[in-house]
Amino acid sequence: MEAEFIAWLRGRLAADPRVPVGIGSDAAVLDLPSQKAVVTTDALMDGVDFVLSEVSPRRVGWKALAVNLSDLAAMGAKPVAAFISLVLPRENALALAQELYEGLLPLALRFQVAIAGGDTNCWNGPLALSVTAVGEPPRCGVWTRGRARPGDLILASGSFGGSILGKHLDFTPRVELARQLAERYEIHAATDVSDGLSLDLSHILSESGVGAVLDLDAIAIADAARELAQSRTDGITPLDHALGDGEDFELLLVASPAEAARIASDKSLDAPIRPIGTITAERGLRGCYPGHPPTPLAIRGYQH
Amino acid sequence: MEAEFIAWLRGRLAADPRVPVGIGSDAAVLDLPSQKAVVTTDALMDGVDFVLSEVSPRRVGWKALAVNLSDLAAMGAKPVAAFISLVLPRENALALAQELYEGLLPLALRFQVAIAGGDTNCWNGPLALSVTAVGEPPRCGVWTRGRARPGDLILASGSFGGSILGKHLDFTPRVELARQLAERYEIHAATDVSDGLSLDLSHILSESGVGAVLDLDAIAIADAARELAQSRTDGITPLDHALGDGEDFELLLVASPAEAARIASDKSLDAPIRPIGTITAERGLRGCYPGHPPTPLAIRGYQH
Repeated sequence: MEAEFIAWLRGRLAADPRVPVGIGSDAAVLDLPSQKAVVTTDALMDGVDFVLSEVSPRRVGWKALAVNLSDLAAMGAKPVAAFISLVLPRENALALAQELYEGLLPLALRFQVAIAGGDTNCWNGPLALSVTAVGEPPRCGVWTRGRARPGDLILASGSFGGSILGKHLDFTPRVELARQLAERYEIHAATDVSDGLSLDLSHILSESGVGAVLDLDAIAIADAARELAQSRTDGITPLDHALGDGEDFELLLVASPAEAARIASDKSLDAPIRPIGTITAERGLRGCYPGHPPTPLAIRGYQH
Repeated sequence: MEAEFIAWLRGRLAADPRVPVGIGSDAAVLDLPSQKAVVTTDALMDGVDFVLSEVSPRRVGWKALAVNLSDLAAMGAKPVAAFISLVLPRENALALAQELYEGLLPLALRFQVAIAGGDTNCWNGPLALSVTAVGEPPRCGVWTRGRARPGDLILASGSFGGSILGKHLDFTPRVELARQLAERYEIHAATDVSDGLSLDLSHILSESGVGAVLDLDAIAIADAARELAQSRTDGITPLDHALGDGEDFELLLVASPAEAARIASDKSLDAPIRPIGTITAERGLRGCYPGHPPTPLAIRGYQH
C-alpha cells in the first residue's frame, strides 16, 4: 500500500527549493535559511486526541499538523517542513491516509510548509499519527519559557475554554501572529496553550523562577466555554473552563510593561492580544478581580 | 505521567552544545554544522515490527532508533539528533517508556546522537514508536538512489537473510561505515536494505533508469538465512531469504568499477564490502552464476 500511496502523494506535492531531496528517498534533505533548526514532534491518537468514528479524517489530518505548527509558533519560529508518520488501521488504510492528507495539505499550503517525508504503515491497532515539524528561528533567537521577570505583563491571543466543542480540531495555529511578533517586539517568554491556560502558564513560571497574578476579568472567555458550562451541571464555570480546558492553541506571552502596551495597541497584528496578568517575584499562581486582593489559583489542565 | 517521565529523562541526558534548547520546551533548537539537514522518520508498531510480549522493550527501543540511523547512513549522513514519539499502552506506561529509552540511549551514546525532544503519550491501544532523526550531509553531498550508471558495480556490506531470527532487533546501523565511505569514495547511488535486497535494489534501478545483473555466488548469505531455510519446509532457499527477507539494514552501494575495487580492498573500513553485481543499460533485475547467462530475478521483499 505504501508504494501506491507515495505515488499519489508525489502527484499532490509541488517541487520546493527548500527540499532538494524529498519523498521517495531514505531521508529528505532540507535547505534551511540558517544553521539553526527548530524541531518539534507531537503524536495524536484515536480515542485520546480525536474520536475517528465521530469526526472526519480531514479534520484529524489538519489537527495533527496544526498542533506542531502551534509549537513552532510558541517559540516564534517559522515553519519550513513537516514529516508525517502514519500508523493506520488495516481496513481502508489507503483511503484513510489520503483523507488525512487532504486535511493537512491545505494547512501546509497556507503556511508554506513543505511536506518533506514521512512513513506510512498499517497494523491491527487504531489510528495514530506523529508529525515532526522543522522551522527557522526568528532573527533575535527563539522565545523560551525561562526569561519572564517580575513586573512583566502576561499577554494572550484569542479566547479560552470549551475547545472540545470543535476548536481543538479546527483551530488555525498562530503562525502568522508569531512571525509578526517576533519581527517587531521583544518577548521575554512564551508558550502555546495546549494543556490549559493555568497549566501552561505554570511552566513559564517554574522555568523562570517567578510567580504570577492573573487579572480574572481580563481573560477572554470563549463562547464555547459558556456553552459548555451551561450544558453541564458539574458546576464548572466558564472561567474555570477558560483556565483549565486546554487545546486552545493560543499564544501566551510575557513582555515588559512598555512592550506589552505596544503589542496590545498594535492593530495590524493577525489577531488582537490583550494583557491578562502580571509576573511577580512571589512564587505561585494567583488570580484577582479589580479592587480585590489576589488569591491562590488552582493549576489545572490536561495531564498526559 | 509525562511530567514524571520528562524529569527522569532530563536526568539521563547530558548537556549537548548542538542542542541549545532541548527537552521541556515547546520545540528544540538544533545548532547544525551547515544549513543542510538530512531528516528521516520511521515508525515501529507492536505486532508488525516486533512482538512486545516476546521481546524486551530495550531491544524495541534500540531498533526504533537504529532503523532511523540506518536511513541516515543510507545517504551518507552523520546523525546529529533524534526525536522520540511514544504511544504507550496505559498499563505500566512509565516503566515501559523507561525501558524503551534504556534500549535506545546506549545506541544514541555510541553514535553521539542527541536526544533532543519527543512526545510521550498513553492510550488504550498497543505500543507504537515513531522516531525522527536529523543528520548532517557528507561534504560531497548526500547519496541518492538516482545516479547509478551502466557499467557501475553494486556493492554490499555484511550478509543477508534470516534477520527475523534476531538481527532485525539487534543490528548496529552502518553509521561508521557510511562516514568512512562518504569521506573517502565517490558513491553513485546507495540505500539500506530494509525491505529486501532485491526490492531495495529495484528502487535504485528505477530511480536511475537502469537494470542490474546480480552475481548470485557473490551474495553473502547470513547463517540465519541457512538456519531459517533448514528449519522450514516451504522450499525457500537460503539465497531466496538473502534476496527477499529484508531488515538486514546493510548498505547497498553503486560505484564505478575503479572506485568499487578500491572500496572492496580497503581493509580499514568498519565492515568489509564486496561487489555483488553490475549495473546494466538493459532494464530489469537479473541474476547469474559464473559461466552462465543472466536470467530474470523475481523482486521480492516486505511490502508496507
